[in-house]
Parts: sequence; structure tokens; C-alpha cells
Amino acid sequence: MSTQNTPYKIYLEENEIPKVWYNVRADMKNKPAPLLNPGTLQPMSADDLSPVFCRELCEQELNNTDREIPIPQEIQDFYKMYRPSPLTHAVFLEKALDTPAHIYYKFEGNNTSGSHKLNSAIAQAYYAKKQGLKGITTETGAGQWGTAMAMACSFFGLDCKVYMVKVSYEQKPFRREVMRTYGAEVTPSPSDTTQVGRKLLAEHPGTTGSLGCAISEAVEVAVSTEGYRYVLGSVLNQVLLHQSVIGLETKTACDKYGIKPDVIIGCAGGGSNLGGLIAPFMGEKLRGEADYDIIAVEPASCPSFTRGIYAYDFCDTGLVCPLAKMYTLGHDFIPSPNHAGGLRYHGMSPVLSQLYADGYMRAVSAEQTSVFAAAELFARTEGTLPAPESSHAIRAAIDEAIKCRETGEEKTIIFGLTGTGYYDLVAYQQFNDKTMTDYIPTDADLEKGFASIPKVDL
Amino acid sequence: MSTQNTPYKIYLEENEIPKVWYNVRADMKNKPAPLLNPGTLQPMSADDLSPVFCRELCEQELNNTDREIPIPQEIQDFYKMYRPSPLTHAVFLEKALDTPAHIYYKFEGNNTSGSHKLNSAIAQAYYAKKQGLKGITTETGAGQWGTAMAMACSFFGLDCKVYMVKVSYEQKPFRREVMRTYGAEVTPSPSDTTQVGRKLLAEHPGTTGSLGCAISEAVEVAVSTEGYRYVLGSVLNQVLLHQSVIGLETKTACDKYGIKPDVIIGCAGGGSNLGGLIAPFMGEKLRGEADYDIIAVEPASCPSFTRGIYAYDFCDTGLVCPLAKMYTLGHDFIPSPNHAGGLRYHGMSPVLSQLYADGYMRAVSAEQTSVFAAAELFARTEGTLPAPESSHAIRAAIDEAIKCRETGEEKTIIFGLTGTGYYDLVAYQQFNDKTMTDYIPTDADLEKGFASIPKVDL
Repeated sequence: MSTQNTPYKIYLEENEIPKVWYNVRADMKNKPAPLLNPGTLQPMSADDLSPVFCRELCEQELNNTDREIPIPQEIQDFYKMYRPSPLTHAVFLEKALDTPAHIYYKFEGNNTSGSHKLNSAIAQAYYAKKQGLKGITTETGAGQWGTAMAMACSFFGLDCKVYMVKVSYEQKPFRREVMRTYGAEVTPSPSDTTQVGRKLLAEHPGTTGSLGCAISEAVEVAVSTEGYRYVLGSVLNQVLLHQSVIGLETKTACDKYGIKPDVIIGCAGGGSNLGGLIAPFMGEKLRGEADYDIIAVEPASCPSFTRGIYAYDFCDTGLVCPLAKMYTLGHDFIPSPNHAGGLRYHGMSPVLSQLYADGYMRAVSAEQTSVFAAAELFARTEGTLPAPESSHAIRAAIDEAIKCRETGEEKTIIFGLTGTGYYDLVAYQQFNDKTMTDYIPTDADLEKGFASIPKVDL
Repeated sequence: MSTQNTPYKIYLEENEIPKVWYNVRADMKNKPAPLLNPGTLQPMSADDLSPVFCRELCEQELNNTDREIPIPQEIQDFYKMYRPSPLTHAVFLEKALDTPAHIYYKFEGNNTSGSHKLNSAIAQAYYAKKQGLKGITTETGAGQWGTAMAMACSFFGLDCKVYMVKVSYEQKPFRREVMRTYGAEVTPSPSDTTQVGRKLLAEHPGTTGSLGCAISEAVEVAVSTEGYRYVLGSVLNQVLLHQSVIGLETKTACDKYGIKPDVIIGCAGGGSNLGGLIAPFMGEKLRGEADYDIIAVEPASCPSFTRGIYAYDFCDTGLVCPLAKMYTLGHDFIPSPNHAGGLRYHGMSPVLSQLYADGYMRAVSAEQTSVFAAAELFARTEGTLPAPESSHAIRAAIDEAIKCRETGEEKTIIFGLTGTGYYDLVAYQQFNDKTMTDYIPTDADLEKGFASIPKVDL
């Protein structure tokens, strides 16, 4: 067992919750490529973005220069409801692995949304309220983002219209009811409430929907309804900015207790958690003040970093959203029915994509059954039933710790435990019943997705 | 909003987690009545109890004299996984109620079992392991206790056989899968694995089971299987002893921040949470050192304190368990399909029953729809989706705070938020859909239950 002299769980004091977000773009030499207007293929200004997003969020989206952005007091107050989140020393996992490594995890699941998504949801709701809006629209796949947005809107008295991928709507009635308890209106997507939904239903009558389609519906409603804007839970620069609270708290706890991480690991779907967790550490790395081995973990079934192409692509399948330069599998790529719903996105945050392209981080992929084996071990040793998404990071952390056992290295590993798996028990049941299978797309599968990437030359 | 100068969430330091349990019986002038042997109707000794329970737990069950019982180091280590639990200042709820009252809640739901049940589960598993046993049997209704026991057994490498009331087994597959993920064997009750189960199935082929029957099955397996004992999650003196960690931490936090509670509120099914929360405060009251208004809240549909009889009764429907002197509705009382599964027990902790009979606490009952209205308000203001059981305490706390608004009194109210409602969304859905109904048993309903109370004259 590790000899590092820290409490099992490190809770910072309330006054150590960050008062500013850290904007990693300020420290990047190569800035992330700008979003492009899908009509003109020209970089989008705040004016271009403002029919879709709140004004202040558009400015945050485009702000590549300010290193620190103050967190408004109302958001700080809300953060106190569930933050600071604990940085936990995984002593029981270390013991089970018989490793000389020191393993820590930043746990973001101790709130009713069940994940880190609330960190950005409350910010986006706040700016909508401040702008005098009536409500917001959004989409949700696995349900964490929708739940977080419902909670945030309820707090500020905003309407919240959630388009939930139909298969999730039907398979996850619990998630739906949490959102309704917080006053949200939840519509299965595709629906007959939008043009894009009606078109899709006409073309594919039995479809169970996709995240790309739900995004298109939510955006259509936002831009066509007075007093509404659209909000998104990942990929965007503003989301990574808000999620920097994860990394800032982690850094404060490390500094306070003399923990010096060698390896920092996060699961990566759209990049919101990973981008938030690594932000201040990446800042040090970009400024040449420290070095860290930073690892993104993605599912082998949806491998945008490890097998995707760095190119401009649409963020949605309905082609109503801006184009982003990112590692992408193509907006027509159909992810397999992998249970980590939050990691089934075809693209990746432009910020993380640029950092990855520039060699500041590496990426690995993990297969589903090995991810759940890691989840089971973690649940049994550390007590918390992890989300399938988070369990990708657990898998990689365990693999690194096993390497340390073999080499004798006493590395310090920090990973992000983004959320709990309380609503993912259908997947756990498959694992328990040994009926879970793995899926790795063939090169031919990927080629089909790549074919949908537009030819944009900027 | 309250002006008391405390953090929103009070987290004690790791070294402030209790190192001893507090045994309130030591301070009671009138001790709780002893358990009776169902065959001889004589008080049971540790020897009588030891075929059913672990040896050391039998001694704890009968120990009416030692005020403090040391918590073994292994249990303290496990407690560090999820304790100390936060004492939260409900500033957002206070604001919504516009009350001068100061409201605090001790939140026990931030662990995967989702409730306070883990506090006793880990203790019972530890003593089973220490005695060299192979495994334990138990029953579960709503599923919290079974989940907690599965987690605790997994930690110590014990087998865990859970009899789950059939209706819950079918309606709560998620709960079942969490238990399986922790390695427990979950059997729907009644089952054909026991005599009592087979008998019941023959008599009532379509039955969906009851907690009383599941207890009988679990006890039968424990006493007839080499190396097994039975464990119970409520009612027993030993359980209240272990749960005193809730109250001890609450008291430490109050003392540290100068919080002086006037009213202490807990929901009451078998009494495990309420008995634990109030323990050290009740001790002060018994010793004449302080006075508190202590309130038990029970569902109007299962009103053992407010409408039951203080008498000896069987703890189970199969009549294999000892008799306990308690407030009871009769072991044949059939609770209505109230959604607070954890509060559907016909009896009440003998310790709490004696304290209630002696006037040291009072009891109120609440109807289901008003409980869920309180739950919804709490979820929207304080962020956490509460368990239906816990929401009974929320209801009473809100009612007390509203009284303070009317009288202008600045009372300090503490209540126990025992757990989360993440697996209770079927009930929330009924509330959201406005299809939820209330049920209050008629006097005739109660008389039927009372008729099953045996005539025991000690």
C-alpha cells in the first residue's frame, strides 16, 4: 500500500473552490482552429454564433487570449452545493494491484446529475438567465448532460427543452424522470416537433435516433423560438473552460499535499472531462514549467483520436451546426452499440485535437469488456460503482499501475472519475451475465465515415 | 437566508470520524425489553442468539451497559471510503421557504449503496469474517440494505446471499445488478430454496412476496448452512449502535461550528437511521444535560408509532425470528403499496419504542403525495434527489420551518437525509404524472393487523 501521507479523501475548504476558470488556449502557441460557418465556410464571429448561443458564451468560445476568466458569484454559490469534489487516494485499489504506484482519482459523480457535466451546465444556464432568455434547448444521449442542464435550469427558473435520443428515452426511463422532476420537458428524438426530425422520420420510420440528429433538432428549436438559445455539453471551447474547475481543484489539492503527478489520465468522448482535468497541468507543460504524461482514453469502438482524421467536419449529422477542425471519424460514422454513451461522438474537442496534433498528449483505446473488468475491480475495492465512460480511465490507470509493478517505478497517477454508473446497469448486467461483446470497426467501416468529411481548405 | 456563519457543507477531518460507537442503552433508565425466544417465550441469551447471529454481534445486541464500544480498525478504514458524510446547511431551501429557521441535514447517500445502511453492513460483515464464517444471508426490500451488504461482503471476501422481495426483484433490476456486480447471489423471495418459501408458494402461487417472508427465508438458510449467519439492517440494538456514527459526526460538526439544534428529525421505518442520528443527542437528554425536540416521521400508510400498539410481536411473518417488544401494527399487517419501501415494516426498534413510550421523543406521520412534494422542492433547491424514505424527514423539516416563518422563531433544525432516490424513479414518475395516490389504513385495517399480535405476558 502506498506510503504517501495523504488522507484517503482530500476535501478542499469551501474557499479553495476556484474563483476563476483557467483558459488553456491563452497558453497555446498553436491556437485551436476557428469554427466555420456551414454556409460560407468562413470563420464565425461572436455575431455569427449569437443566434445559437448566449452572447457571453460566444465571447468565451472565441477568447483565445485571457488566461483567467472570473467565475460569477452566482455560479460560485451553486458550485458550493456539490464542490469541492474529493481527490481520493485509491489505497484499496493500489493494494489489490500490488503496485508501487500511487493512484489518485478526482471524483465528479457526487451530485444528482451523476457526473462532471453540472460544472458547465450551471455556467451556461447562468449566462442564459443573465441575458434575459426564457429557456434553453439541448440534446442528451446517455442522459448525464440533460440531467445536469435540467438541474441548472431549475435553479435559475429557466425552461429546459431536452431532445433525448429515442433509444435512450425508451431504455433509460429513470434518467428521463429525473429530468422531469427538475421541471424539464423531455422529447424523444427524432420527433415531429422539428423539420429535421420530421424529415428523418419520413426517411427512416423506425429509427431510434442518434446524438447528431438530437443536436440538429435542439438547434432548430433554439434558433426558431423567441427567447431561446442552444447549449452543448462537450466539444466546445467554452465547455472546456468551465470544466477547468476539475483540474484547478486537483492542482490545488496536489500542491497542498505535495502530490506530484507523473501521469494524468481521462476518458475522452467530446473532451469535456479530459480537457477540464488536464487544463492547469497542460498549462504548465505548455509554458515549459513541468512535464506530465497525459493520456486520453477512448473506446476501441469509437476511436476518433487513435484512428480518426484531423480535419474540418460538421459537429452534427443534420449539418446545421458549425464545422470544427478536430479529430473525427466523419459525421456519418455510426458508432457501434457501445454502452459508454457519453463516448460515442464522432469528433473531439478542437482544443484537445490541436494539443494532440502538437504532441502534448497521447491517446489509447480500450475494449468494452476489459473496461468493465476494470470497473468491477474498482467498484469492489474503492466502493464506488463507476460510469462506463469513467471506467475507460480506470482501465488505463490500472494498466499504468501494473506496468509500475513490473518495472518497480513509483509513479503517481491521477485519473478522472467523471461519474457513477447508477443508470448503466443494463450494461453491467450484460457484463455480469457474460453476454457483453467487444466491437472494433474495420478499416472499411472507418472509410465509410471518413467519406462524409467535407473537403475544406482554409 | 440564514446568517449562521458555517460553510455550506461541513466536512469533518478524517481523524474526526468516530473511533467508538455510542450505546444509548447505557444511558437509558428503562432499558429496552429483551428479545424473547419464539418457542419458550423466555429472554434470549447470547447463546440462544448465536446460531442466528455472529457471536460478537449477539453480545452487542445484549449490551445495555457499556456507553462506548470501540470501532475495530478495519471498520474505521472502510468508513474512510465514504465518511465523514457532510452536514449541509440548507441555505437554498431556507431561502425558498423564506424562513428564519436554520436548517441542516446530515447526508448519508454519497456512497454506492445510496444510504446509511453501509454503516452497519460493514460492521456485521467484519464480525462475520472475524468469526471465520464463510458467508451471510439477508433479505432486502427496497434494495439499499442488500446493496450495502453486498459491498461489505465483497470487501471482506465473504459470500453474500440476498433474498429480495420478488416484487422489488422484478421492478428494480438495477438494484439487483449492483448487488451482482459486488458478487452477491440474489434470489427472488418467496423461492423454492427454503421450506418456508416452498410452503408460501404452495399456499399463494402468485405472491410477489413480503419483507417478513424474505426474512424468514434468509434466517432458515443461515441456521441450516454450515459457516453462515444471518444479518439484519434495522430494528436490532446492534444496528442502532453502528448507526450512531451518523449522530456522533453530526454532534462533532455542531460542536465545532457552534450549531445548537432545537429540533432533530428522522424518518422511521425500523429505526436504524433515526436511532443513529439522534443517539448522542438523546444521550444528553437522558442525562439531563440538554433538551431537544426529537421527531420520528413515518408514512401515514404504515404508522407503527402513531397508531400502533406497544407490545411483544414477532419480527417476521414466518414466526422463526425472536419476539421483540416494540410499537407494532401486528406481524400480519399488510402495508399498502407505499413507495417508501424502507418504511414499510410493521414494527419499530425496541430502543426507540422504549424511548418513545417514556416520552423522550414524539412522532408524526406524512402522506405520500405531500412527501413527494417536499422531495421535489428539496431536489430543485438543494440539488440532491432524495430517497422517498428520507423525504419523510424533509417533509417534517419543511413543516417545522414554515411554523418558524409564522411565529418568527429562529429555530435550528437538523434532519437526516438518509439516501438518494436514484432507483425510485418509478415513484417519482407517478408523482410527475400526477397519478400518485395516498393511502391511510382504516381502523378496521389496523384491527386486522393487531389481531396477529401474540398475547405475551412477561
